[in-house]
Amino acid sequence: MNKVAIIMGSISDMPVMQDAIDILKEFGIETEVDIVSAHRTPEKLFDFSMNAHKRGISVVIAGAGGAAHLPGMVASMSPLPVIGVPVKSSNSIDGWDSVLSILQMPGGVPVATVALNGAKNAGILAAQIIGSSDKTVQEKMIAYKEGLKAAVIKASEGLK
Amino acid sequence: MNKVAIIMGSISDMPVMQDAIDILKEFGIETEVDIVSAHRTPEKLFDFSMNAHKRGISVVIAGAGGAAHLPGMVASMSPLPVIGVPVKSSNSIDGWDSVLSILQMPGGVPVATVALNGAKNAGILAAQIIGSSDKTVQEKMIAYKEGLKAAVIKASEGLK
Amino acid sequence: MNKVAIIMGSISDMPVMQDAIDILKEFGIETEVDIVSAHRTPEKLFDFSMNAHKRGISVVIAGAGGAAHLPGMVASMSPLPVIGVPVKSSNSIDGWDSVLSILQMPGGVPVATVALNGAKNAGILAAQIIGSSDKTVQEKMIAYKEGLKAAVIKASEGLK
Amino acid sequence: MNKVAIIMGSISDMPVMQDAIDILKEFGIETEVDIVSAHRTPEKLFDFSMNAHKRGISVVIAGAGGAAHLPGMVASMSPLPVIGVPVKSSNSIDGWDSVLSILQMPGGVPVATVALNGAKNAGILAAQIIGSSDKTVQEKMIAYKEGLKAAVIKASEGLK
Amino acid sequence: MNKVAIIMGSISDMPVMQDAIDILKEFGIETEVDIVSAHRTPEKLFDFSMNAHKRGISVVIAGAGGAAHLPGMVASMSPLPVIGVPVKSSNSIDGWDSVLSILQMPGGVPVATVALNGAKNAGILAAQIIGSSDKTVQEKMIAYKEGLKAAVIKASEGLK
Amino acid sequence: MNKVAIIMGSISDMPVMQDAIDILKEFGIETEVDIVSAHRTPEKLFDFSMNAHKRGISVVIAGAGGAAHLPGMVASMSPLPVIGVPVKSSNSIDGWDSVLSILQMPGGVPVATVALNGAKNAGILAAQIIGSSDKTVQEKMIAYKEGLKAAVIKASEGLK
Amino acid sequence: MNKVAIIMGSISDMPVMQDAIDILKEFGIETEVDIVSAHRTPEKLFDFSMNAHKRGISVVIAGAGGAAHLPGMVASMSPLPVIGVPVKSSNSIDGWDSVLSILQMPGGVPVATVALNGAKNAGILAAQIIGSSDKTVQEKMIAYKEGLKAAVIKASEGLK
Amino acid sequence: MNKVAIIMGSISDMPVMQDAIDILKEFGIETEVDIVSAHRTPEKLFDFSMNAHKRGISVVIAGAGGAAHLPGMVASMSPLPVIGVPVKSSNSIDGWDSVLSILQMPGGVPVATVALNGAKNAGILAAQIIGSSDKTVQEKMIAYKEGLKAAVIKASEGLK
Repeated sequence: MNKVAIIMGSISDMPVMQDAIDILKEFGIETEVDIVSAHRTPEKLFDFSMNAHKRGISVVIAGAGGAAHLPGMVASMSPLPVIGVPVKSSNSIDGWDSVLSILQMPGGVPVATVALNGAKNAGILAAQIIGSSDKTVQEKMIAYKEGLKAAVIKASEGLK
Repeated sequence: MNKVAIIMGSISDMPVMQDAIDILKEFGIETEVDIVSAHRTPEKLFDFSMNAHKRGISVVIAGAGGAAHLPGMVASMSPLPVIGVPVKSSNSIDGWDSVLSILQMPGGVPVATVALNGAKNAGILAAQIIGSSDKTVQEKMIAYKEGLKAAVIKASEGLK
Repeated sequence: MNKVAIIMGSISDMPVMQDAIDILKEFGIETEVDIVSAHRTPEKLFDFSMNAHKRGISVVIAGAGGAAHLPGMVASMSPLPVIGVPVKSSNSIDGWDSVLSILQMPGGVPVATVALNGAKNAGILAAQIIGSSDKTVQEKMIAYKEGLKAAVIKASEGLK
Repeated sequence: MNKVAIIMGSISDMPVMQDAIDILKEFGIETEVDIVSAHRTPEKLFDFSMNAHKRGISVVIAGAGGAAHLPGMVASMSPLPVIGVPVKSSNSIDGWDSVLSILQMPGGVPVATVALNGAKNAGILAAQIIGSSDKTVQEKMIAYKEGLKAAVIKASEGLK
Repeated sequence: MNKVAIIMGSISDMPVMQDAIDILKEFGIETEVDIVSAHRTPEKLFDFSMNAHKRGISVVIAGAGGAAHLPGMVASMSPLPVIGVPVKSSNSIDGWDSVLSILQMPGGVPVATVALNGAKNAGILAAQIIGSSDKTVQEKMIAYKEGLKAAVIKASEGLK
Repeated sequence: MNKVAIIMGSISDMPVMQDAIDILKEFGIETEVDIVSAHRTPEKLFDFSMNAHKRGISVVIAGAGGAAHLPGMVASMSPLPVIGVPVKSSNSIDGWDSVLSILQMPGGVPVATVALNGAKNAGILAAQIIGSSDKTVQEKMIAYKEGLKAAVIKASEGLK
Repeated sequence: MNKVAIIMGSISDMPVMQDAIDILKEFGIETEVDIVSAHRTPEKLFDFSMNAHKRGISVVIAGAGGAAHLPGMVASMSPLPVIGVPVKSSNSIDGWDSVLSILQMPGGVPVATVALNGAKNAGILAAQIIGSSDKTVQEKMIAYKEGLKAAVIKASEGLK
Repeated sequence: MNKVAIIMGSISDMPVMQDAIDILKEFGIETEVDIVSAHRTPEKLFDFSMNAHKRGISVVIAGAGGAAHLPGMVASMSPLPVIGVPVKSSNSIDGWDSVLSILQMPGGVPVATVALNGAKNAGILAAQIIGSSDKTVQEKMIAYKEGLKAAVIKASEGLK
């Protein structure tokens, strides 16, 4: 059974990160949610990163703002795919800081970066990753896309 | 057997995208390489995107520069995880255009974006995705990270 | 009889795009309004783009936010002039994402980009395009510019 | 017979703007090329802008760099559609200055902006505008797009 | 007797530009205020620019937002020093558009640019320009700077 | 007799600042050139700024790169108009640092900022400032603008 | 006994700078707070900078917004470590101006720059500097970091 | 005896970081140089950060490029003052990525950031920190500043 870990640098990131939890529930994928701060709990970061793949986690989603080091540091230690969510925090310089701190990782240590505050997309991406080896989840993804389409078509008809 | 499709918008993106091909070969993962232009071969784009998952592709890596629509358009039609590589092309505005065109996807349609010209990392991320359900590949990823570490330690010793 | 198609990626773009509808009505030019999402209704995008010029559309106005692919994808398939309106959406990075995703199109596939949220100007540009072969519309454009001038002169007199 | 005027702020913009001349020749569209500097020949700018539509010009293409006022000033006086080409000049701040000076026009006075140094696309856009009322040109545009597609398919086959 | 002309592209710029009027009144310098739109009243722009120096104007202050062409166009035609005030308007991209459209003028045609919304400083700069040939105004400037200092010292004492 | 002081933060700014010296010579305006570093010779900065207006200087041109404090610090102490030239130095972040450090002065202390590396325009602006009270210089400015126009017209004729 | 001087360019910076005062009090480190404006009280700046190290100050924290010259100017004259706090003021261009004006100091004159509005971190950095030679303060720093960790762990437990 | 540790993420950062080593030698301060990669040698990072202050290190200088996590991660674990040097690496987005990844640290964990590629200034700042408790070093700093001044004065005399 696949499981996705959703971690964030601070409880203040929860309003953004909740979207990832919700959408994964929609796909019927189990999640584990925790606060792991790269800058305030480095031992926990170390422990989480070295062991996540050993206890059944398939994908890690990590959200952080400002000089956001959490996604990249997990990626440096874990063999799992790590999805990074740049969070637009209060003293952020328009979100550029978290976007660039997560995206511009050096060769050898990728982070799969999604849009600013894009936690929902992080959840969908995690489902797609699981779906690449689990046809049931992939079928749900195809159905999900049909749902997106139907909503647009309904809105389009509402115009006429 | 897992396979990764590597597509790019133009043959001029090949020098950047070659890094993805090379690193996947290192991991012993089969690749399929093609040129698919969102703007010049839209039918091929549609055909590729609708069918990749049906013929054994597990992950798509798509590279493009400027107003880079290829990764996002594949992601709109395929249930597979799509990794986007922003390519810094000649008339790019310092690469910001391709980064933002790939990263800032709307809710529902994620693209796993890597660093500017980060094709090598795209390949590694694809291997991590495959490794999340294939322990042999995951073991190779752990060994790969050990290799990165060894190279740094050797450089560190060279300093003394 | 010339007709302008006004499409947008989401119903949430309507408050911005309404300005294009209104100004074209002022010029007495017929419009057709629809929601066509590049990322959620790709088949509709394909169908719209391949056929718009066959049913009497002269100009397409397409608005979208974030990684805005709609204008460029229509332009890739349609022989018509396509005007792109970057929409400043909620999680946009200050609008830079939609501006660059629409503006920085590759050689061979132009999009006529207007200012951020500049739907009114998109409508005027469409009228100018129609006016380049329809002297009645061009006369109205000359009169419209006289109206702009008169408003400034009146404001100037109000100062004295 | 339709004609496109191609103007630029300085002879130093010619290497960029030549692409517009060349592609319009390919479409068999007549061009008129001149240097009109908003900042150094304001009377000529006025004269050009007030009269272009009276002597058979259908579309104006204007290229300029830095604080690029030429496209917007022509648009302020002419009823014709004006296409602006931001030129990356030597002391430009990475091209942002010319892009924003041309793109961010106020309500009432649009400029159809293309990519940085995108003179070729300006020419194609001018042809699309003419093609919206001239079916012969529109047919050529459809053929041109077929040619783009053929080139990509050939490159794709070269890979195999 | 020296006089400063304060012009702006739109009545909506008045809340910002009022600061220039107020500070010049404080220095006892006569002002002339008008709305001159580069894009909507080009003839008035032409007339203003060619004649301001002939009727006793010593300095021009011009404020505008977005693709702000007013200061540069006045500078292209007038021999007077022109001070440009970038105004942060509603659909501005964070003010970058007006700053760059005013600042990055080509060789031969300077605009003395002040900070975003810096109309007060534009007024002070105009007074400094007049003061460079009028010792009475220069004395007032020295006294004004003493006043700035006194205010800081008073605030500093208030802390203790 | 009017005199313009041209100062710069480092001898390495001379290749850029030479343009100001040259154009002022063309206008027959006397210059005084010196190196005054805000960060390395603060006493000289104080001495220069407090006394320039007392020994016949009418205008100060100050060029500096990076965190460019020279123009603003002179402006804080001198009653003269200070023209700031942002210099694009080697480790500059594309020139943005010097542009913003010079332009964004607080209320009360303006710097007349010109384009990046725009020393020639700084010289012309100094001449315009002098010309606002010296009709001989103003006449030369009018003639200079005629010369700019003639050069464009000649280039235009060369095209035909 | 070590003492930290906290200075700011304007009383309006106090709401941001108060965080530095508060955190230093928490560490039991004496502070001296004053307003010193580089642009309005240059003599006071000079006096402060030349003498701070002579009267027992160990570290200077300087906060300023816009074209923020205060930290760099103190650093140019004082042998002490100077910590710069970029303050996001009202007409700032998103804070970029103060960040770059403080950060990009030339070779020879460093300013230890912290995040936008990061006065709390400036205080902690001052304590770390003092702690590098005062083991009591360094012990408090270690305890402080334990406190940060405990708060995250408590928040983490609150999730479960 | 004080000692400064100079670490960097990759041997490729050495050409930039050498400046820190050289200037500290000039101040007679002992250095320890090593390669510690946050992303490739996380255990070494942990070990270094937890223990540096225990073996006589007073200040840490850490240089890194791209998504630069090294300075911030050391700062998260060490009670020492950490100076961060943003390095402009090859695929950097103009250096913005390393600047923001180092500067924008969250509350509680400061990094003393210097200019892009500003390793020399990092060394001087380290000397100032040591000098704040070691009067011999502080005297050298005062002498160093005199040397900077003398060089400017000599260059100034060379102009005359």
